[in-house]
Amino acid sequence: MNLPKSLRKSKLLKEPEDLGFGTRLTESDERLINPDGSFNIDRIGLRSWTPYQSLVEMSWPKFFLVLLSFYSAVNFLFAFLYVLVGVENLAGAEDPALGMDLAEAFFFSVQTLTTVGYGAIHPLGLSANIVASLNALVGLMSFALMTGLFFARFAKPKAQVLFSSSALIAPYQDGWSFQFRIANKRNNQVINLRARMIMSWIEEKGGEKIRRYGQMDLELDQVSFFPLNWTIVHAINEGSPLNNRTQKDLERMNAEFLVLIEGYDETYAQMVHVNRSYSWRELQWHKRFKTMYHSSKGGRIVLDLSQIDELQ
Amino acid sequence: MNLPKSLRKSKLLKEPEDLGFGTRLTESDERLINPDGSFNIDRIGLRSWTPYQSLVEMSWPKFFLVLLSFYSAVNFLFAFLYVLVGVENLAGAEDPALGMDLAEAFFFSVQTLTTVGYGAIHPLGLSANIVASLNALVGLMSFALMTGLFFARFAKPKAQVLFSSSALIAPYQDGWSFQFRIANKRNNQVINLRARMIMSWIEEKGGEKIRRYGQMDLELDQVSFFPLNWTIVHAINEGSPLNNRTQKDLERMNAEFLVLIEGYDETYAQMVHVNRSYSWRELQWHKRFKTMYHSSKGGRIVLDLSQIDELQ
Amino acid sequence: MNLPKSLRKSKLLKEPEDLGFGTRLTESDERLINPDGSFNIDRIGLRSWTPYQSLVEMSWPKFFLVLLSFYSAVNFLFAFLYVLVGVENLAGAEDPALGMDLAEAFFFSVQTLTTVGYGAIHPLGLSANIVASLNALVGLMSFALMTGLFFARFAKPKAQVLFSSSALIAPYQDGWSFQFRIANKRNNQVINLRARMIMSWIEEKGGEKIRRYGQMDLELDQVSFFPLNWTIVHAINEGSPLNNRTQKDLERMNAEFLVLIEGYDETYAQMVHVNRSYSWRELQWHKRFKTMYHSSKGGRIVLDLSQIDELQ
Amino acid sequence: MNLPKSLRKSKLLKEPEDLGFGTRLTESDERLINPDGSFNIDRIGLRSWTPYQSLVEMSWPKFFLVLLSFYSAVNFLFAFLYVLVGVENLAGAEDPALGMDLAEAFFFSVQTLTTVGYGAIHPLGLSANIVASLNALVGLMSFALMTGLFFARFAKPKAQVLFSSSALIAPYQDGWSFQFRIANKRNNQVINLRARMIMSWIEEKGGEKIRRYGQMDLELDQVSFFPLNWTIVHAINEGSPLNNRTQKDLERMNAEFLVLIEGYDETYAQMVHVNRSYSWRELQWHKRFKTMYHSSKGGRIVLDLSQIDELQ
Repeated sequence: MNLPKSLRKSKLLKEPEDLGFGTRLTESDERLINPDGSFNIDRIGLRSWTPYQSLVEMSWPKFFLVLLSFYSAVNFLFAFLYVLVGVENLAGAEDPALGMDLAEAFFFSVQTLTTVGYGAIHPLGLSANIVASLNALVGLMSFALMTGLFFARFAKPKAQVLFSSSALIAPYQDGWSFQFRIANKRNNQVINLRARMIMSWIEEKGGEKIRRYGQMDLELDQVSFFPLNWTIVHAINEGSPLNNRTQKDLERMNAEFLVLIEGYDETYAQMVHVNRSYSWRELQWHKRFKTMYHSSKGGRIVLDLSQIDELQ
Repeated sequence: MNLPKSLRKSKLLKEPEDLGFGTRLTESDERLINPDGSFNIDRIGLRSWTPYQSLVEMSWPKFFLVLLSFYSAVNFLFAFLYVLVGVENLAGAEDPALGMDLAEAFFFSVQTLTTVGYGAIHPLGLSANIVASLNALVGLMSFALMTGLFFARFAKPKAQVLFSSSALIAPYQDGWSFQFRIANKRNNQVINLRARMIMSWIEEKGGEKIRRYGQMDLELDQVSFFPLNWTIVHAINEGSPLNNRTQKDLERMNAEFLVLIEGYDETYAQMVHVNRSYSWRELQWHKRFKTMYHSSKGGRIVLDLSQIDELQ
Repeated sequence: MNLPKSLRKSKLLKEPEDLGFGTRLTESDERLINPDGSFNIDRIGLRSWTPYQSLVEMSWPKFFLVLLSFYSAVNFLFAFLYVLVGVENLAGAEDPALGMDLAEAFFFSVQTLTTVGYGAIHPLGLSANIVASLNALVGLMSFALMTGLFFARFAKPKAQVLFSSSALIAPYQDGWSFQFRIANKRNNQVINLRARMIMSWIEEKGGEKIRRYGQMDLELDQVSFFPLNWTIVHAINEGSPLNNRTQKDLERMNAEFLVLIEGYDETYAQMVHVNRSYSWRELQWHKRFKTMYHSSKGGRIVLDLSQIDELQ
Repeated sequence: MNLPKSLRKSKLLKEPEDLGFGTRLTESDERLINPDGSFNIDRIGLRSWTPYQSLVEMSWPKFFLVLLSFYSAVNFLFAFLYVLVGVENLAGAEDPALGMDLAEAFFFSVQTLTTVGYGAIHPLGLSANIVASLNALVGLMSFALMTGLFFARFAKPKAQVLFSSSALIAPYQDGWSFQFRIANKRNNQVINLRARMIMSWIEEKGGEKIRRYGQMDLELDQVSFFPLNWTIVHAINEGSPLNNRTQKDLERMNAEFLVLIEGYDETYAQMVHVNRSYSWRELQWHKRFKTMYHSSKGGRIVLDLSQIDELQ
């Protein structure tokens, strides 16, 4: 039992193209990278939760919900405190239309927390003044957090790389090639773009399944600029893991083609990384991409992103 | 029809110096990189719009216009809400000089949104207080955005590299060289400066035009510091795409010289990238740059940026 | 006296794997890197103190304490100023419940510093108005600092790498290996993870102790993704500093195994570095790690972080 | 006249160790890098001024002066506007103690600009309300700038590398070496520290002076950690530009030793660069550094920064 394991283990470590997935992920129906770039993996146990990350990455509606709940909660908390020290210490808090003390205290807390401070209501006496002082301090600090998060979400860089929805087995020179293409959906400059491609498949080894990986060399793996689309081409030759593979083979092997793309985003002045994968199901055989740009009058080039999937 | 295409395609991928422009941009009158570093390319179709980017990159007048419009719009929105719940719920809102309810409500919203909250006007009753609470919250969040953008614009790093307005074919050792020079317009330190140069031209291949690229090796392609001007020199020898080219040749080939410069800006602690190109029209033949610095008394060096184009 | 010293010195400089610790740290009971990644070194003398760093790195309770003290201090300071210029210049400052002038001035300062400005109290006359103007300015600037620090602390990236609490001497291929494993506790993506390992030990050289270092080559020293656990393996062969070492040897040598891990954190868009060390005491001999993930129904993988130390 | 020039030019470009200073800086009394790391170079002409940079890099007193001037200026501006539309439109602005209209308007502007808004004074009528609305908007935007700059200054990373005030010609192995040492003044972690050293001197070439550069190879040019001091050693052998140089030689050559150090600062999560130079005047011959750390009880190491210059 031990030996084969340690052997498998050694094989894992010998796979130079192992991307960190290892050789054990062999459920035939799963893929390593989803089309959106995420992994099919759940963490349980000691996982640590980072509030900043969740608050920055949650959806906008959820974020605003959190915001509103927090806003109400803090104001209710202070409302209770004001009631505790006695609402009679809030001068001017006898709005007949409002009546209820707690409501008075709540809206006074709002006015203090947001530092609006109309003053129609204002604290009297030591205790009320102390609570109000804390109320304002808490307001400034917590709004620093909320507004900071709000801006961080708004300013968060997103690489907007458009992928062709399928990859092609296209004619190339006097043979065939694996091709897909990408384009920048944004008007910003992404520079020094690098691409890397790896084929992953499942193999029968002495009765047990093992996941294999193979580098797919690219004709061009880096471009300085990304003004147009970039067609990424892997020539299928002796060295290629695709060599002599038929459509049937790839299905049987549950072949998946992992794409790693990174570049430097000048708008956000940082590296951006995009991952994607094409499964054997997303391959089109013996097709070729149509050019997706043309010259307009005035000598400018027009890149039509909607044509990313146009084939011929 | 297909074969030559795939051939062209292969040639594209074989061009090691292709910067991402490909081989199809062959309108004789266009250039790849404008003097300001931008590209002659428009995106249409699925292009995605990033508000942050546009707001950070738009002109200052446009930004302030957006700011003012947003400011008025939000206040009008809340003004309507106050009118909806009844302006009679805004105590003290009976400024005779102002008269109109909407105006009252508008300026009360301003006072709440900005958290100034004079209090001469203040909300009464539940509904007015709720609107005011939202008004303040919206104010804090939206000002977080506006002020954040304002600061981001102000603090945005800009590489201030001054280029000689024309490139020279200058004597060099016992032959000729292609030269241009750059200087740092700012007083900050840009370090580990790297330069790269590529010549692009259009070629007739079997009846159809194709764009070619050729690396231009530099005598010195990196400097650790950038205290003075840097004269970037490409020696014209056998290896050079400029070898044996006459002025006429370059015009016929619509030659363009692409310059990629990157360095680390210490003030902003990040990499900065500058692109530029010189077209055959911006070449001066058989000239040489004048030194643009001299020693002042006190042993200091004076670099006179206004002399960047001084030739001899 | 000199010669041996200069020799030792030269040896220090010849140790290619010296990580910056040098060869003199030979107190047998100390370790170079604590389990938490810190060093056993104290700085005295000219060390310079950076307020930003301390305020960002101190514990949360301590930070809030600093915050509150600062808040009170500044308000007391301005309270004194108001008393100096005469509290009679603070209109409306005759709260019977509060009585004392200083208290009045203190809470007025709070209302001004936080820009709440109820207005029930407001300055009259030139001097009081000037103090109040400074009070508000100081408030805005100092809260900028406090809120900025608060957010910086909250948003500070932390690499959450979980290490197996002990390293193993595990079977590997037909021999033995040194192994430990790590996993990402967070759900964010850490990419391009690199690992480096160095063994450090103390040696008797001509009557005096000297600290030695030796590179430990890894079967795989880089992974593109970090979706699961990563078992880092050093094969024990001729080249290894562990070659033919018994448990007794390592104890005598006070062996320590230094681990340097770095990767790019996509949530915070920056490099993160984690250091750790395993001492000879934290070695387990002739054990092997249990797999810590399994396939759940639905073809997803479940990584159970609580099993990081499970052996077989 | 031309030929020698182009020859010199070529030599400039052939100096692989030229750091960007070129070969023309030959005033015998000047040094390239001042002890504080700055250059002896002034920019004139088209230099562009970046407000952000100046405001971040100016001294603290100067910054606060700018802050106060701006604060007063803006408030005076709005004060005039209020006077223009008539101070009678500022209800409650009849503070006898203050008297003068402009003063009233000024302090009302302060209360609006800082969003304190006591409300004792508040605008009446359309024009006054409009001015006040702008006043608050300008306040929020300009304070965003001022507070942002304030925080940026406070949080600006500074590499606090302590250099030995002089470099040594110290015994090394069976010969001599050029040595200096550095230590980290802060308690933060600087990692992956790299050092580079270049000797620069002035040479007589065919009647005219020219500046030369020569790489100085280091025994160890990189350390992973920087927990203690780092003694940087260049062995003087055949390859060294210092080979067979006497103290007199170096004086005649006006020798300067340029030091470039860079590392990754973990507190600020960015690269930091430090430059320094030692002139021939700052050399000490035939000395050796004393160790600057010792073990304290408890097995901790104590690094005494005040001993950086201790020699033996």
